[in-house]
Amino acid sequence: QKTYHIAVIAGDGIGKEIVPQAQAVLEKVTRGKADIRYEDFDLGAERYLRDGAVLPDEDLDRLKQQDAILLGAIGDPRIKAGILERGLLLKMRFELDQYVNLRPSKLYKGVVSPLANPGDIDFVVVREGTEGLYAGAGGSIRRGTPQEVATEVSINTAYGAERVIRYAFQLAMKRRRRLTLVHKKNVLTNAGDMWQRLVDQVGQEYPDVEREYLHIDASTIFLVTEPSRFDVIVTDNLFGDILTDEAGAVVGGVGYSASGCINASGTYPSMFEPIHGSAPDIAGKGIANPTAAILSAGMLLDHLGFEDEAASIERAVEDDIERSGSTQRSTEQIGRDILSRL
Amino acid sequence: QKTYHIAVIAGDGIGKEIVPQAQAVLEKVTRGKADIRYEDFDLGAERYLRDGAVLPDEDLDRLKQQDAILLGAIGDPRIKAGILERGLLLKMRFELDQYVNLRPSKLYKGVVSPLANPGDIDFVVVREGTEGLYAGAGGSIRRGTPQEVATEVSINTAYGAERVIRYAFQLAMKRRRRLTLVHKKNVLTNAGDMWQRLVDQVGQEYPDVEREYLHIDASTIFLVTEPSRFDVIVTDNLFGDILTDEAGAVVGGVGYSASGCINASGTYPSMFEPIHGSAPDIAGKGIANPTAAILSAGMLLDHLGFEDEAASIERAVEDDIERSGSTQRSTEQIGRDILSRL
Ligand SMILES: CC(C)[C@H](C(=O)O)[C@@H](O)C(=O)O
Ligand SMILES: CC(C)[C@H](C(=O)O)[C@@H](O)C(=O)O
Repeated sequence: QKTYHIAVIAGDGIGKEIVPQAQAVLEKVTRGKADIRYEDFDLGAERYLRDGAVLPDEDLDRLKQQDAILLGAIGDPRIKAGILERGLLLKMRFELDQYVNLRPSKLYKGVVSPLANPGDIDFVVVREGTEGLYAGAGGSIRRGTPQEVATEVSINTAYGAERVIRYAFQLAMKRRRRLTLVHKKNVLTNAGDMWQRLVDQVGQEYPDVEREYLHIDASTIFLVTEPSRFDVIVTDNLFGDILTDEAGAVVGGVGYSASGCINASGTYPSMFEPIHGSAPDIAGKGIANPTAAILSAGMLLDHLGFEDEAASIERAVEDDIERSGSTQRSTEQIGRDILSRL
Repeated sequence: QKTYHIAVIAGDGIGKEIVPQAQAVLEKVTRGKADIRYEDFDLGAERYLRDGAVLPDEDLDRLKQQDAILLGAIGDPRIKAGILERGLLLKMRFELDQYVNLRPSKLYKGVVSPLANPGDIDFVVVREGTEGLYAGAGGSIRRGTPQEVATEVSINTAYGAERVIRYAFQLAMKRRRRLTLVHKKNVLTNAGDMWQRLVDQVGQEYPDVEREYLHIDASTIFLVTEPSRFDVIVTDNLFGDILTDEAGAVVGGVGYSASGCINASGTYPSMFEPIHGSAPDIAGKGIANPTAAILSAGMLLDHLGFEDEAASIERAVEDDIERSGSTQRSTEQIGRDILSRL
């Protein structure tokens, strides 16, 4: 039995409630197959409010030694927007070079989509995770005066785009062989042109994958009118952020949307997290849906090579949703129900 | 009778088919009240393919002398993305200082929304039109090599944001007094923080307007799950572009979505255009829906002070859609049907 070290960052709000359910599922499916050791990391709002630390170097160093990271949610209304996001969540994605932000969207049987005719929805967004407008390369002058100028710089490299595009093509080969590049190349001509050239170039190596291009604005339309057209979408950091939230809504709520922040070259650990936030409005009530966290744990196992176990989690979740997706249940009840189907 | 000079840029694809319908409507409602003189501008794909000109200075100078501009659509698949968009459409918005990009979204009775339970949808997006990521302030180095770096710079000024925020508050006062700022201030901390401060500051002058803030990603969710919550949305150039296309889909298709690129200080003419594109796939078939162009002509009249006439166009369109919204009709038939209701 191999030993795996998993960092657990339950984080804020409902993060603390859903992560234990995901751990229970991990525990059960790996019993007798792997020896999983958890290390809890005290990171998030409480730590910051207590001692001002967001992600100290020593925590980052310890994180780098893990095999993977399971994250609940980060964010607290008491803290100014950006501090935890930039200083903790994005810092991990960047410092651990998690360049593939993998976000599947699937309409599970039993879930009610807000669309009248959703069709079969089953696609994956491959969102670039380490550059673009998220680089933090902006600034401002004359702050607080009528002459203030604030900039945000989107930094895009061929190195960064090419590797995530390649990942997306490989994924498309395992799926329905259709890849959509989403950008805004008619306005963001520098970055958009580079992305398009790289998709065309890497695409030569995958002649069986059908390619299309859509502007970000047009994609938001198709997600509502014809979401079943998508198989694999590859896009930049910000467009991926926007599209996957809309996609989450279309498949019945971000409560079902898992994600992986993957360092596909394996130099640092990858991180798995639901795409929803800390939901302060429902935190502490024991009613948060742990499904996205449980599916994220499944993606974590898949990443570590436990493909069958990951598939069994996905199946258990599917069964659970089909049977009781629309019933009001507590966090613990949903966790127990999914466990019982494993 | 006052004389008004209207520049007409029918442009490309279906632009040429829908603009005459909008002109016929303008003609009819202003008969006996205003003397409208049209000047056709030969701008768009054909001009560019013929003589390489996109928006020459002399055309721009003549445009500046008009009272308003009616535009059909710009864009042609034969021309590399960005050339006409940046060189013509965005150049006009920037050079004519059309800083308020006004985009109403309304679910008309008789139109089928893709949402199962759309509710009453009636909101307006006030999109900044002259800065942000549209500034064209990017570049690239080592183009075409594995070391390529492409940047896109979002330039945001207090001057630019404040004036459009003020416009949005004034609009909210005439409507349901609810204003939503959409941004991504947890990541784009420089620009987002400036927008939030300015909304709070200008908001002091409008204590009756209820304010809320939403991240762009969360807004794409609410547009699908609860679009009736919105009254006035104020946002930057790119987020406004994205949101209004999604909003167009939610209210049954961008074929019903009009817009105004408004220079609210009156130093240069404002421009009115449907938010849809040139639709090369259906161009030349006489089946494009002229409704968005006709509604845009209504916004043009409203801007010139003909509020009653503008309202009568909106009513005629509403009646027409309620009666025959879902029937297949030709461009000319829809135009005639709307004319007959005036
Ligand atoms: C919290 C925020 C920084 C983050 C992002 O923008 O990436 C979130 O929206 C997400 O999608 O994981
Ligand atoms: C054609 C394009 C440059 C334009 C934009 O991005 O503003 C269009 O999408 C719009 O919304 O008017």
